[in-house]
Amino acid sequence: MPAQKATTAPASPSLERSTPFLVVDRAVLVANIARVHDHLEGVGLSVRPHVKTHKIPQIAQLQLGAGAVGITVATVGEAEVFADAGCTDIFIAFPVWVDADRARRLTRLAGRCRLAIGVESVAGATHLRCKLDPRIEVMVEVDSGHHRTGCDPREAGEVAAAVVAAGLTFRGVFTFPGHSYAPGAAVGTAKQEAEALAAAVQATQEVALMPSVVSGGATPSVGEMRRGVVTEARPGVYVFNDAQQWELDRCAREHIALTAYGRVISSRPGRIVLDAGSKVLGGDRAAYATGYGRLLDHPRARIVQLSEHHAVVDVPSGQELQFGTVLRVVPNHVCIAVNLVDTLTMVEEDAEVQIWPVAARGANS
Amino acid sequence: MPAQKATTAPASPSLERSTPFLVVDRAVLVANIARVHDHLEGVGLSVRPHVKTHKIPQIAQLQLGAGAVGITVATVGEAEVFADAGCTDIFIAFPVWVDADRARRLTRLAGRCRLAIGVESVAGATHLRCKLDPRIEVMVEVDSGHHRTGCDPREAGEVAAAVVAAGLTFRGVFTFPGHSYAPGAAVGTAKQEAEALAAAVQATQEVALMPSVVSGGATPSVGEMRRGVVTEARPGVYVFNDAQQWELDRCAREHIALTAYGRVISSRPGRIVLDAGSKVLGGDRAAYATGYGRLLDHPRARIVQLSEHHAVVDVPSGQELQFGTVLRVVPNHVCIAVNLVDTLTMVEEDAEVQIWPVAARGANS
Repeated sequence: MPAQKATTAPASPSLERSTPFLVVDRAVLVANIARVHDHLEGVGLSVRPHVKTHKIPQIAQLQLGAGAVGITVATVGEAEVFADAGCTDIFIAFPVWVDADRARRLTRLAGRCRLAIGVESVAGATHLRCKLDPRIEVMVEVDSGHHRTGCDPREAGEVAAAVVAAGLTFRGVFTFPGHSYAPGAAVGTAKQEAEALAAAVQATQEVALMPSVVSGGATPSVGEMRRGVVTEARPGVYVFNDAQQWELDRCAREHIALTAYGRVISSRPGRIVLDAGSKVLGGDRAAYATGYGRLLDHPRARIVQLSEHHAVVDVPSGQELQFGTVLRVVPNHVCIAVNLVDTLTMVEEDAEVQIWPVAARGANS
Repeated sequence: MPAQKATTAPASPSLERSTPFLVVDRAVLVANIARVHDHLEGVGLSVRPHVKTHKIPQIAQLQLGAGAVGITVATVGEAEVFADAGCTDIFIAFPVWVDADRARRLTRLAGRCRLAIGVESVAGATHLRCKLDPRIEVMVEVDSGHHRTGCDPREAGEVAAAVVAAGLTFRGVFTFPGHSYAPGAAVGTAKQEAEALAAAVQATQEVALMPSVVSGGATPSVGEMRRGVVTEARPGVYVFNDAQQWELDRCAREHIALTAYGRVISSRPGRIVLDAGSKVLGGDRAAYATGYGRLLDHPRARIVQLSEHHAVVDVPSGQELQFGTVLRVVPNHVCIAVNLVDTLTMVEEDAEVQIWPVAARGANS
């Protein structure tokens, strides 16, 4: 989304608790959901948010309440947590390997919600034969330039035909434009994504298979998506935003809903150390990042070194950050930070209002 | 430790379970503990292993059974987990901020085990006055070149005097030579560490305070440590080893006890994708690392891209890694990987023998 002012400023650090811990400003969270959903619905796209970012059923309910048509997850374990919480339409956007245990778990899920999984090769489609419950639909993943999983869009017809040959229902095509995570890449990536999905649709139509869903989206480029052949967007990070979105100029500082509260445990001229390290922030540092996260209230400071329990911060001259002060740290990649903790502390107007368990934390399989 | 052959080869992948998950070869684990403890005791040093690496009381018991004098932890939460499991001598090697809640928790701990915490400044020592239970001893942290926390060794006397002035007992001095994590740095780092600790001892003696413990150590340089003024070593990673130790040539391939089992979910010529991503491996990638982890059984392969649930691997020409194959991935930094999962699967001679809960997972405060 283009940067714009939110109406609610994040809460300032005032919570009495042993640091470090993760805090969410609920008003900013709710505003982020409304703003992004409004944009996507405004351009004619359905929203199926990726809940791996937050792993919290209460937040999925906010997204569904704001018009999401269903949710996206990465693993069968995540699908189980959200199905248990009442989600009834789930897409596992991953080329799931269906072993005997997963076959049983997927069948149980298919009995209580509308379900789809991903596949990205003829071998993958063939592997599903007699293993995947036929109530579960299949989405074909194509590569739009991120070069991770996903077949060449021109091969989507062949893969879709293999899905049908395996006795399963082909629902549509999807891609993840992860290469939007680079400075200035959003517009070009959204264009590549639309072209790849259009080529995939054409390829499936050539084998007489009509996709009912054509799905893309990642937070950096979701503001550039438009209805064309594309019908659906699956952003994840937009609910919280993070230092990556901030540094890519895909959100404003005021749109950052989640921070780690960390305390200054060492203060020397020009340099402090916080007790929030990689075991609460995550260790991700993209090539374009200016550090290992950012200080929300001190944008010129830089986290120059990160250990498991220490963040070493260079502080601009003239700024004094005293021993014992609590500071708000914006993680580089919020999905990683949330997966490290058991709970998020929800605040509203500087007051703690609720503790939300990260219900699907660690649900990797 | 210098690279040398272990007698037991790690188990090959044969466990039936939904990937990804973390597996420990128990024989390699036990051999790693014996080898490193034998070396350290042989050069006259006590061993106080850092258990943040594994967070598992059963492994601490193996270390104590192999002669460790006590354990090191990073947080009060970790100390509580290990005290609950019967550990009676714990050093929290961190400049702990003692708020009201931590003061209560530390007092409870002091009632059932011998306990010490770190301090690294006069301000930090002064902060402890009337907050820290006086049964808890204090170790002064000095900087030996890693430039994280730790005072200048020449200031150790001043900090130690402030500890005593705060009504507390000064136990000794410690450092973490984290700059040993660089190619060829082990010997020079161990020398700097010994010099910094000697300077710190001299500084405390100048204020008439005699340290009873002088503590250092990190896995890359622990093989270079010798008894001098130094009395104690606190390595952590050595129990499992990881791709960092392997690439720094501080362990042999045969000493790697922990791997993530991941499955080939996409196979194209020269490139595969595994379902083990940063949510099970961790995202750490040091400047010297050749990728985001290594394949234990395919040392020439390179993990060139890592997402939360995908590892993209370049495979040397001539090697075919088929769709559906399970491979063993060595995380770059094992402390981070273990902290992501709820359990480790222990194997012996290719058979699963036990599931060990990661009891102190996420105990960040």
